[in-house]
Order: sequence, then structure tokens, then C-alpha cells
Amino acid sequence: MSALPITATGTAEPLAHGGDLGAIRRRFPRAPEPWIDLSTGINPVPYPVVDLPKEIWSRLPTRQQEQALLEAAAVRFGVLDPATIVAAPGTQALIQLLPRLVAKSRVAVLGPTYEEHAHCWARQGHDVAVVSDCEPADVTIVVNPNNPTGKLLAPGMLRQDRGRLIVDEAFIDFLVPGASLAGDLPANTIVLRSFGKVYGLAGVRLGFAIAEKPIVDRIRDELGPWAVSGPALEVGRRALGDSAWLQAATARLAADRQKFDTHLTSAGCEILGGTPLFCLVRHPDAAGLVEKLGRHGIHVRRFVRKPQWLRFGLPANDSEFRRVAAALT
Amino acid sequence: MSALPITATGTAEPLAHGGDLGAIRRRFPRAPEPWIDLSTGINPVPYPVVDLPKEIWSRLPTRQQEQALLEAAAVRFGVLDPATIVAAPGTQALIQLLPRLVAKSRVAVLGPTYEEHAHCWARQGHDVAVVSDCEPADVTIVVNPNNPTGKLLAPGMLRQDRGRLIVDEAFIDFLVPGASLAGDLPANTIVLRSFGKVYGLAGVRLGFAIAEKPIVDRIRDELGPWAVSGPALEVGRRALGDSAWLQAATARLAADRQKFDTHLTSAGCEILGGTPLFCLVRHPDAAGLVEKLGRHGIHVRRFVRKPQWLRFGLPANDSEFRRVAAALT
Repeated sequence: MSALPITATGTAEPLAHGGDLGAIRRRFPRAPEPWIDLSTGINPVPYPVVDLPKEIWSRLPTRQQEQALLEAAAVRFGVLDPATIVAAPGTQALIQLLPRLVAKSRVAVLGPTYEEHAHCWARQGHDVAVVSDCEPADVTIVVNPNNPTGKLLAPGMLRQDRGRLIVDEAFIDFLVPGASLAGDLPANTIVLRSFGKVYGLAGVRLGFAIAEKPIVDRIRDELGPWAVSGPALEVGRRALGDSAWLQAATARLAADRQKFDTHLTSAGCEILGGTPLFCLVRHPDAAGLVEKLGRHGIHVRRFVRKPQWLRFGLPANDSEFRRVAAALT
Repeated sequence: MSALPITATGTAEPLAHGGDLGAIRRRFPRAPEPWIDLSTGINPVPYPVVDLPKEIWSRLPTRQQEQALLEAAAVRFGVLDPATIVAAPGTQALIQLLPRLVAKSRVAVLGPTYEEHAHCWARQGHDVAVVSDCEPADVTIVVNPNNPTGKLLAPGMLRQDRGRLIVDEAFIDFLVPGASLAGDLPANTIVLRSFGKVYGLAGVRLGFAIAEKPIVDRIRDELGPWAVSGPALEVGRRALGDSAWLQAATARLAADRQKFDTHLTSAGCEILGGTPLFCLVRHPDAAGLVEKLGRHGIHVRRFVRKPQWLRFGLPANDSEFRRVAAALT
């Protein structure tokens, strides 16, 4: 009997992402520590993780804990029925899963955008095109607001009749509530929401899909039991239910983003767009700026296909702001 | 354009598992708190989770952290090359994933055993048979030692030429090291190892597959980036590298298991088998015993198809031993 082709699917090189300081540290071995990592769009001031009960670690996550998380998520996202939300160990886990749930399709990804969507659909054998305007397809994928441009499509634009629609709202949380489709979901639509970026807890691994109940049930079934860790269920429930913290974070991020834009502009960067969590700029010598920042122990995001673009996450505090400002001048 | 059949796969009722006290609490509302949950085979004395650095929660998990975990796992499992190990957010995530990686197959599950294997392969459309002796198949799945019987097959038995072999070694850790296939993997074999059961940290969600490198790469690719949480990477690395803790736990569990067997035998239970983490018994009035234990706030595992069988996890400490002993007499 012969082995089955478990390795048959072509495995492309993994995509490059921000947030991993290993390589940049090796490239600038004399840079001052600690590094300031502005290469992601993660809230630099995390929701506090304190006093977790021991059982969160030791016991299998329970349905009751999951239910409590989904109820907090429903209130937070303005979703009427918690049964139309499913929690996963990170939005990325959902991005990996969705292409396995539909037959071979024509998939249009509105882009350029977060590359994992096209990557994951293509490697599951779908016919994927990255398009600059929505065009007919079986599955349309929109990152809204877009990453890295920050371009935001109005709900009305997204409600047009088309095939299945997947809207990745990873960076929508600090915008006006009406920007999200979550509270009034069009038919055949799956909305993805991120937890780690908003609450500055990317290590927790928690994300959500919001969709019609049969789809949510199917996703939950594919994820299987105990998909989300005990700590993620507990921290997620607390954070999603804390509207005062979110309000304060929204105000702080808006002020910090404004302040940061001034620094970036002074340094010769043209602001192209962004969200409250990151800023996309063009700089005539982006490579030179990356070098300069690297020597100061500051890591930012570059884009292979857009050599003049840089994406900056926000500094966490006054001390980081001062270091970044000094490096930029 | 019509929606794609994202909900097409028949979704059977989820399987019943131990470890969720919600239903049993409702059934015995007057039982004393706290409940003693013996319905799982999880080490009741967890590895201590202390002083986690804040970055574990806030930052995206890094490749460096993952590499450090895999190196600790390789030493722990006696595996020469860490690149032949992949970490997942729980063994269950791997059990969900494997049936998606092979074309429609004849699958033989040596059973009765942990039901998720047959369940997950069947719902992905494979032709699944639960067999009492290994017979020719494309994929053979063996839980070794078996859950709930504890039956242990010698490595020689498993090394026989057959199609692809998946060995779930979830309960092998407290047995002699030579019992595992991990250190000397036969061709076409995937070994699954659990973290949460051994270290009493089932909420962490961490498990491993050990296989030839192309298979491991494929599994990692399917899981995608940041599949394992920051806390799981950190706690996993620490625990897997702590051989003194494991040695002490092994001795304690062996002594506790022996003591517990005496109590169970005195209560009219016939010991059928088990592992250092649980004991499988037959009792002529198992349903009555479950009632009695339930009224004392003690939860054990029943089996729909074997009404006289009960599986007992181990009490955590002297106080729990006393409560269980009192309830049994």
C-alpha cells in the first residue's frame, strides 16, 4: 500500500509579515535595545492582563466560557444574536479555514491588501485575482478599512448584490460604529473581526467570524472543540466588555496618530493613508529611512512591490515618541 | 450569482466529552461545591504558570519563540530533528486538520477509542471503519495507549508495513520512554503528542505532530502563521524543558493511581485498565454510582455504548481523595 499524497499541495514560501524582530536585530546588531517595533498595526498600549484564575490554564475551555465571550462580542460588535458569531484562535485561523469550505471558485480580492487572503485561497486551488475594483466573482474579499492604505468603503458600496462576500474588518474598531457591516449583515456575507490588534494582545490569538448561523455552525464544526484557549476566552470576555477602556484608547490613538503624522511629515514623508493604528507614507528614499531607523533600533514595515511605501505603527508612549522623533530628524 | 455551498458538509452532532461541568451542575444543583471533575484524563496537579512576561500577551508570537518550543519538545520526545515537529493549538486542531490533507481514503480506526478521530475523518468524506484488529487500509489510526482502555501496543506491532499510520500518543508520557514511536519514527507515520494532559494545562491549547519533514511543513503551512499563542509557546517551552517536574509527577501519579485503584475496588468496581492519568472500571450499577457521585459533587465519564463502564481521572490531593473515598463507600 502506498502513502497518500499528504504533501501534494504546492506550498509556496510563507509571506513576510511585520512583528518579528529576529531578522532586523541580526541586521542592526549595534542598534540600541529595546527595539521599538512599529512594523505592525497592533495597539501599542495593551489591555491589562491581570489576576487570571488558575483554572483558565488547567481546565479544558468550557461551552459556558465560550458563550460568555460570544455574548460580550455580540454587544461589542452590535450583533443581535451571539449564535451568529464564532470565535477562533486568531483571525488568521479563519483566513486559513474559509478557502477549504467552498468548492473551487473564482475569487476576487480587492487589493493590494493584506496578502494572506489571496495566498490562502490560491493554495487551496481557487482561481484568485487581485482586483482594483469589485468585479463579478464567486467570492469577493475586501479588507475594510484596507491594510495598508486605510481606504474605507461605505457599507452601501459593500451591500451590492454579488456572490459570497468576505469583509475583513481587522482595523475597523477605532472608526465610527456605522462603518462595520457586523450589526446589519447582508446575505452571503462573512465579517472577520480581530481581537489582538484592537486590544494590543496579539499573542492571545483570538478572532471572530460573523455570518448567518448555518455558516457559523459550519466554521465552529471545522475548528472543532476547545479551539480557543482558556486565557483567550477569559481575557477576551473582559476586554470586549470594557467599553470605558475602548473609549479611552480611541481618544488616545486619535491624538497620537495626529501627533505622529506631524513627525512623519517633518521627516519628508507624504501621508498616503492609514487607520488609527497605523500610518502609510511615501518617502522618496524609503530604503534609506529604514536604514536610519534600523540603526536607532526602530523597525517599520516595507512593501516589496511598493519600494517607496512604509507603514508605521504608533509609538507606545512619550519615551518611544521621543526616540522615534529623534531618529526621524 | 449564487452563494457557494459553504454549509454543505453534513454536520453531525458534536461528540460528548468530559471536562465540562455545566450540564452536571444543572443535574445536581444541591451538590457541594467545588465540584471534583474526574471526567477527564488531565493531570490534576498542573505545571505552575508564573511570572509570564507581558510581551507574551501583547506581541505576535515569533519564529524564535516557536523554534525554542520545538527544541524543548525535541529533547522531551527524544526526536533528533526539531524540524520534524510542528506545534498546534491543541492536538484536537491536528485531529481536525489531518483528514483534510489526504484524498478520499479507506480509514481504519483501532477502537473503540477517542471518538474524534473517526468523527473528523468521516465528516470530511472518508470511508471510515472502527476495527478491533488492524486490517489493510489507506490510513490506520491507533490511540496508544488507548483511551479509555489503556491498552498499549508495542512499537514492533505498529512498525508493520501498512499505509499511512497515525498514532495518537496523548497518554503515553508517564509510561516508559520506549513505548513511544516518536524517537524512531517509521515511514509514513504521524505521531500526535498532547501537552495539556501531561502538564495539567488543558486550557493552554498546545499539541504536537511528529512526522517526516515534508508532512510537518505541510501541516505548518495549513495551520498558518501565529497558530500557537504566545502564552502557550512560553509555558510549553518551560514545562517541556523541566525534566525534574516530570519525574516527580510520574512518581506521584503512579502512587496516586495505585491508591485510587484500592478505593475503586473496595467500592465494587472492577479495574479494566487505564493509564497513570485515568482508570477504566466496570461496575454492575454504573448509572447508580454516577448518581451517588453526582450528589457528592463528583463528575466522572460515562460511555453511551458501554453502560457499565466508567472512567475516573485522578483526585488532585488528599482532600479530594477523602471526598471521593467518602462518596464511593
